[in-house]
Amino acid sequence: MAKVKKTPRPKAETPKGFRDYFGAEVAERKAMLDQIGAVYQLYGFEALETSAVETVEALGKFLPDVDRPNEGVFAWQEEDEDWVALRYDLTAPLARVYAQNRNELPTPYRRYAMGPVWRNEKPGPGRFRQFYQCDADTVGAPSVAADAEICAMLSDTLEAVGIPRGDYVVRINNRKVLNGVMEVAGVLDPSDPDKFAHERGIVLRAIDKLDRLGVDGVRALLGAGRKDDSGDFTDGAGLSDAQAEVVMGFMSAKRENGAVTVARLAELVEGSKVGAEGVAELETIANLLNVQGYGPDRIEIDPSVVRGLGYYTGPVYEAELTFEILDEKGRKRQFGSVAGGGRYDDLVKRFTGQAVPATGVSIGVDRLLAALRAKGRGAAETAGPVVVTVMDRDRMGDYQAMVAELRQAGIRAEVYLGNPKNFGNQLKYADKRCSPVAIIQGGDEHERGVVQIKDLVLGAKIAENASLEEWKSQPAQREISRADLVAEVRAMLGSQS
Amino acid sequence: MAKVKKTPRPKAETPKGFRDYFGAEVAERKAMLDQIGAVYQLYGFEALETSAVETVEALGKFLPDVDRPNEGVFAWQEEDEDWVALRYDLTAPLARVYAQNRNELPTPYRRYAMGPVWRNEKPGPGRFRQFYQCDADTVGAPSVAADAEICAMLSDTLEAVGIPRGDYVVRINNRKVLNGVMEVAGVLDPSDPDKFAHERGIVLRAIDKLDRLGVDGVRALLGAGRKDDSGDFTDGAGLSDAQAEVVMGFMSAKRENGAVTVARLAELVEGSKVGAEGVAELETIANLLNVQGYGPDRIEIDPSVVRGLGYYTGPVYEAELTFEILDEKGRKRQFGSVAGGGRYDDLVKRFTGQAVPATGVSIGVDRLLAALRAKGRGAAETAGPVVVTVMDRDRMGDYQAMVAELRQAGIRAEVYLGNPKNFGNQLKYADKRCSPVAIIQGGDEHERGVVQIKDLVLGAKIAENASLEEWKSQPAQREISRADLVAEVRAMLGSQS
Repeated sequence: MAKVKKTPRPKAETPKGFRDYFGAEVAERKAMLDQIGAVYQLYGFEALETSAVETVEALGKFLPDVDRPNEGVFAWQEEDEDWVALRYDLTAPLARVYAQNRNELPTPYRRYAMGPVWRNEKPGPGRFRQFYQCDADTVGAPSVAADAEICAMLSDTLEAVGIPRGDYVVRINNRKVLNGVMEVAGVLDPSDPDKFAHERGIVLRAIDKLDRLGVDGVRALLGAGRKDDSGDFTDGAGLSDAQAEVVMGFMSAKRENGAVTVARLAELVEGSKVGAEGVAELETIANLLNVQGYGPDRIEIDPSVVRGLGYYTGPVYEAELTFEILDEKGRKRQFGSVAGGGRYDDLVKRFTGQAVPATGVSIGVDRLLAALRAKGRGAAETAGPVVVTVMDRDRMGDYQAMVAELRQAGIRAEVYLGNPKNFGNQLKYADKRCSPVAIIQGGDEHERGVVQIKDLVLGAKIAENASLEEWKSQPAQREISRADLVAEVRAMLGSQS
Repeated sequence: MAKVKKTPRPKAETPKGFRDYFGAEVAERKAMLDQIGAVYQLYGFEALETSAVETVEALGKFLPDVDRPNEGVFAWQEEDEDWVALRYDLTAPLARVYAQNRNELPTPYRRYAMGPVWRNEKPGPGRFRQFYQCDADTVGAPSVAADAEICAMLSDTLEAVGIPRGDYVVRINNRKVLNGVMEVAGVLDPSDPDKFAHERGIVLRAIDKLDRLGVDGVRALLGAGRKDDSGDFTDGAGLSDAQAEVVMGFMSAKRENGAVTVARLAELVEGSKVGAEGVAELETIANLLNVQGYGPDRIEIDPSVVRGLGYYTGPVYEAELTFEILDEKGRKRQFGSVAGGGRYDDLVKRFTGQAVPATGVSIGVDRLLAALRAKGRGAAETAGPVVVTVMDRDRMGDYQAMVAELRQAGIRAEVYLGNPKNFGNQLKYADKRCSPVAIIQGGDEHERGVVQIKDLVLGAKIAENASLEEWKSQPAQREISRADLVAEVRAMLGSQS
């Protein structure tokens, strides 16, 4: 007889680059996003949840640093031949939504969005292909008051989730000032915006790498170029010494407060119309924030902020955490950026032909969660449930009645529902569940109208450190009247916290 | 010169069958899911958030009513040739997660999950290809105490979100009882389980359609078959009169309470081992629920519950809302089912080769939201923000200071950030935002240290109904001291609620 060919068992694995989130991880992120959402609400922002799937046409090719359409996204062809894809960020869908509903939506439209996005990139350690973003944007507000508002909101948000004042700074710059500096340095010609685009790209990237390359590295990239430690050579922008000095002066233009920095920037862009505009905008933002009490201890003007190479057209901003952590090699370094954004005026125009001013911020959800954990400010772990053990399978109803009473009192509780034969397994289970309290009632206790109540937190402590005296004087388990169950459990939970 | 070919503008549309959720819709769903999550937590269930993308291999072909692999899912091929797909429910990912992490997870593993799932189906009115599911399952608990627990939790959940007792009922049945009835009727041979499978399929489908076809329709399908109103003929199971009577008797076996129903079922399955097992399980469930106070006003045994044709192996249950609504034709009908589930023991086995008992419920999130709306119990609409209007563009700082003060007092507030030229547009904006209060301060008011405070709720009421007297005695707008802004706004908001 021919052997029946068995179908091989499927592998129980997430696809490469994807992961699952369990219990405390889900609760911790939810708690943080709830706090962020409350601040956004307070500022008048409205929630928006767009579909995860967009047409490739609507998404466009706006993924930062990727030029080819579809590159970097998960896309597939529908039966009707249209191509659709998973959203790669929350900004492209916002542009689509605003264009689609602009007659019904209020203008300005303040909206926030939280949810997963997907990137079809090579997965690596800590690099996932699905991750959360949390954005807030104002569409249809030309005034830089909208940018100032988002910076203030970002500052409030960081404090609301648990980053204390002094441990973060929101830094603001303006692309127009940068363009003014380029004009003064002679690498931007207002009458021919495309001229020197290559050189400007090198300059922008160099400034963006100031943290990593230091002043000398950036200076080299502005000029002839730079050889890195590995011996690789990066072409420079080919600026003359005089030109390079203008740019270097810009990067170090930050002064003791906003007013002085703005004055210094005004000198640097003298003669450039766009530069003067940018300086005036920064001044307006600084004044608006000052009058609301957001001083340089929270928000500062910092000319070294560039924010990538994308579509920003005016103010750009980022939130940096300034406390130190140890990197993977045990060296101290600042935690760094957890949020960034800026003004972009062309995203909606793709759909409607009309420029619509917009500005917004994106918080790196996983980065900020990591920061909270580093500060020991992660959401308190969800307390494990009280576990009612099963000594007598036939009295399951009695045990269920106990958890029902506890739950009615608002106490998280469950009956052990595995095979009750081995009592040790029940206590191991309670341990795995991080249970604070276990309840035990055998037939004898049942007859006498009592239960055993076991303090698992104290029990663990005693098992670890206690002297014999303490062990004797602080019994982790005692007998109580069945009628006092809820009151005694509540008291025990109270004494643990 | 050749004309430059313009790229056509992309259409600002969601893909067919997808939609966006705005402000109040997002808030309403979030509020309901938060309430549900709180009940699940209380019962000791842990959150799980799996990746949206699964390997097609892991998903399998378990989509109900679809036999071909990949049918009904959004799938695409990765560069490494593996096929992946968006999850179509939250149960298949749970089976994968449990199989993947079974050594680390507690057993039994109680978990809940909430999130979007995707179905590649033909979209239609009210039929979307992305929608929310909300599941709770217990994996690794062989005892029907786990099924009873989920039914009790489902009852608590419905009341927690706002369905009052009396407006819902959780109905329980058991597939084993059904199999016992089949055995007694002679369409199930325990020694050859595949025999009569075709007939049993027809019987199951017929019972499941009792609501729609009525007793006569079901009876016809048990016998020779049934011609519907359109003249189409559906083949029957070909049962003899005696056989059909057994099945019909089963469907009408529900009695005034669980104990009597169970006794009646025991008579009906007499002689069938699996049937007796099923009746004993129902009896255990009924006793467990009784001892916790879940009487037939909340949870009842109802032999007509079948729950689809899928993978259930024991208890099945569903929650039905019993209040009446008007259907699209204006006829009264019961709202119907909003949640369902049951015991399935083979999902994890696909991966591990070992049977793992599991039971769980899935709540239809959109159905339950619709029910809450029908009962007028939707989450209160998020209050619109206080809008501070802009009379004098140069004094933006003053207006920002006002909203900053209001927010510090916990009051949702924003400055109008559109073009302030046309004051009418600012009030229209406030209207669109459902603002309760508008603040107005021109140069004159500023000099005198006052602001105008406008009650937009009262204003709208007066505009609608008020007599001239009322209009005069209840001015919707008045002047207050700038120093009293927060106190006066708070008082006005209080008087509105």
